[in-house]
Amino acid sequence: MYASQFVFKTKKEDPADEFSRGAKLLVRAGFVEKNFSGVYTYLPLGFRVLQNIAALLRKEMDQIGGQEMLMPALTPKAIWETSERWKILSDIMYTLKDRQDRTISLAPTHEDVISALLSRHLTSNDALPFYLYQIQDKFRDEPRAKSGLMRTREFFMKDLYSFHESAEDLARFYEIVKECYMHIFAACALNAYVTKASGGTFSNEHSHEFMVESSAGEDRVFVCDQCHFAENIEVRVEASTHECPECSRADLREIKAVEVGNIFKLGTKFSEAFGLYHHAQNGDNSPVVMGSYGIGLGRVMGTIADVNSDEYGLIWPMALAPFQVYLISLFKAGDNSSEGAVLAHTLYKDLQKAGLEVLCDDRDKSPGEKFGDADLLGIPYRVVISEKTLATQSVEVKDRAQGNITLIPAHDLVRFLISKRI
Amino acid sequence: MYASQFVFKTKKEDPADEFSRGAKLLVRAGFVEKNFSGVYTYLPLGFRVLQNIAALLRKEMDQIGGQEMLMPALTPKAIWETSERWKILSDIMYTLKDRQDRTISLAPTHEDVISALLSRHLTSNDALPFYLYQIQDKFRDEPRAKSGLMRTREFFMKDLYSFHESAEDLARFYEIVKECYMHIFAACALNAYVTKASGGTFSNEHSHEFMVESSAGEDRVFVCDQCHFAENIEVRVEASTHECPECSRADLREIKAVEVGNIFKLGTKFSEAFGLYHHAQNGDNSPVVMGSYGIGLGRVMGTIADVNSDEYGLIWPMALAPFQVYLISLFKAGDNSSEGAVLAHTLYKDLQKAGLEVLCDDRDKSPGEKFGDADLLGIPYRVVISEKTLATQSVEVKDRAQGNITLIPAHDLVRFLISKRI
Repeated sequence: MYASQFVFKTKKEDPADEFSRGAKLLVRAGFVEKNFSGVYTYLPLGFRVLQNIAALLRKEMDQIGGQEMLMPALTPKAIWETSERWKILSDIMYTLKDRQDRTISLAPTHEDVISALLSRHLTSNDALPFYLYQIQDKFRDEPRAKSGLMRTREFFMKDLYSFHESAEDLARFYEIVKECYMHIFAACALNAYVTKASGGTFSNEHSHEFMVESSAGEDRVFVCDQCHFAENIEVRVEASTHECPECSRADLREIKAVEVGNIFKLGTKFSEAFGLYHHAQNGDNSPVVMGSYGIGLGRVMGTIADVNSDEYGLIWPMALAPFQVYLISLFKAGDNSSEGAVLAHTLYKDLQKAGLEVLCDDRDKSPGEKFGDADLLGIPYRVVISEKTLATQSVEVKDRAQGNITLIPAHDLVRFLISKRI
Repeated sequence: MYASQFVFKTKKEDPADEFSRGAKLLVRAGFVEKNFSGVYTYLPLGFRVLQNIAALLRKEMDQIGGQEMLMPALTPKAIWETSERWKILSDIMYTLKDRQDRTISLAPTHEDVISALLSRHLTSNDALPFYLYQIQDKFRDEPRAKSGLMRTREFFMKDLYSFHESAEDLARFYEIVKECYMHIFAACALNAYVTKASGGTFSNEHSHEFMVESSAGEDRVFVCDQCHFAENIEVRVEASTHECPECSRADLREIKAVEVGNIFKLGTKFSEAFGLYHHAQNGDNSPVVMGSYGIGLGRVMGTIADVNSDEYGLIWPMALAPFQVYLISLFKAGDNSSEGAVLAHTLYKDLQKAGLEVLCDDRDKSPGEKFGDADLLGIPYRVVISEKTLATQSVEVKDRAQGNITLIPAHDLVRFLISKRI
């Protein structure tokens, strides 16, 4: 793509109504736009990142046997009454009356909806376990929505639901998801700590949260840098000591953290409410044992923007970047026959042929402005072609994350950048 | 994928609450599930088709220069008041009050939202034209929602918006989209007629609708099979004659049709309301000229199911099918060492390696039941391995659309099926 095609431009000034570094950068770089408090539009650059996060989640969910589906947001009141969650969730649930005066809610989560759905399909002889997931638009009337993409009122969530014949099988799969989540966050360049859940709708011993250190975080967590132990301050019993209960070192420090994912052993709460039973080994019908596992896509994007960034802008990992290469030719625009222009065009085509997504900055702007936008957008590799590099048939490559600049022979660029992909 | 992993089974009986053939088949085949009137879940098979339709739309939109983004469903009342559409759309707009007692609506369309968004970004010096689109969940409180996926209250729409400096440039792009839409519907195996719009929110001379003949359709259209002229019965002036105004033949016949897409020349209505101006050639600031172009993904799926099906089930085109190949081995399940089982496994792997999506029916069911499900699901090619085919080192291939069955040498199967892809 060519930068001259951009509809939404980068901004020099921080937005007045964003408070976290990540949110300020995402708005300045033209990735997102606030429609109103807690409600955002993904502009073309931000949408590319959102799609890349979705692709990563799909790959990982499919690998652990998940099957993708898509449930609606509109849900009748009766579903939430069956699970006795109408009142529990009323604080965050948007509700409305339709033209037939029925009370409808916008689903803030889908345990109840998927259980009601399966109650119309599952028979006691059906084979367990199975795993269903979706990437879907959710709605929560959050009392606080002031942390950019961290806490929004409309948001895309990857929610996975698992169905088992025993608590033991749920425990087995729960550990698989836990590991899968750590893998996902690592691919997002996020260093996540796992803590026991501190509360919330499903508060119990059998839930875990994935926490990433961030000054924009709303949670407080004790972490041990030695053994990676972590504990939410709200559940910490011996808060008076800084000794790690895992490795016994006095290394615990308290961090502000963002919850980027959570996993729940739901047990039989929903299967009993909605009548999901299977034939148990002893011949009786037993309630299906369920688990639920969530990751908010926007929150992941907001957290990366907050944690993986510097004073110059965003820094995306290769797998999620809107483009992997930012190509700048310092030759005059319009002079398409010069050696430099021809090389730029050739590299643009060759990199794309090799499967890399390239943003070519063909705008009539100063080198400084182009360099600034390359840093602000956080594209992993900036490639510059100039008189100086052309003299040695090379190009200048800057690694956005490391900051180092190297000269690479032009004919070797594709191979070099391909090797940087995971 | 293996059919034994299916969570949602096919059904022998038609659902009592669906009326069109397509909706009955989609429910029986386990593609969709009605949550309540006009609100559906896409089950794993249906979700695969939905994703394939989305991929086709993205490819076509990108080819005409569209840039994808994603706007929210939650919208403040003020936006709709600025365009004076709050009252006009009140019949179909879901509205609710949030915890701060603000009136919010669930966007039934996004002309107003994208205009408000651009009013905060566009300057009068920005380069026109540009084209922005999204594939997004929309909400309309439809008075009638009884035609399966044809008219739902929550639905995914591809909506494209174009921005031009003149009516002439809009006219140029409008024709490009018209052609692009015909290309899209052809790839969906739908024979679409273009008619002038008969009414609706943007009713004017400058709108067209794409109509597909279907007994489940709610529109009535005169069509000429000779020259492909079409006219909505509501706008037809000389309804008394059956002479085609294009080719003068007396060939007009009246069909029931489904509107699968629509395109609108919006002119300057929204740009004037939201203050979108550009520098005109005469030096003045002129309002931007806009167009809007929609295709409902669920409606396309429902229409294909209705039009492209027979008494045995659905018939998907290669590009949209949830799987391209339905592989059946008539050897006993569990006997993995037999020559037939080994061949089935090899073909399953080879076809996938070649980029084909294969559904292998490994269930402990009769051949008749497997053949029935292959037809019901509408997978384009059914491949059967049996004692008989093995004797000649071949496999039996059935073309779902044509109905013909041929023997193909086993070693030639991949090449044969690859050649059937568009």
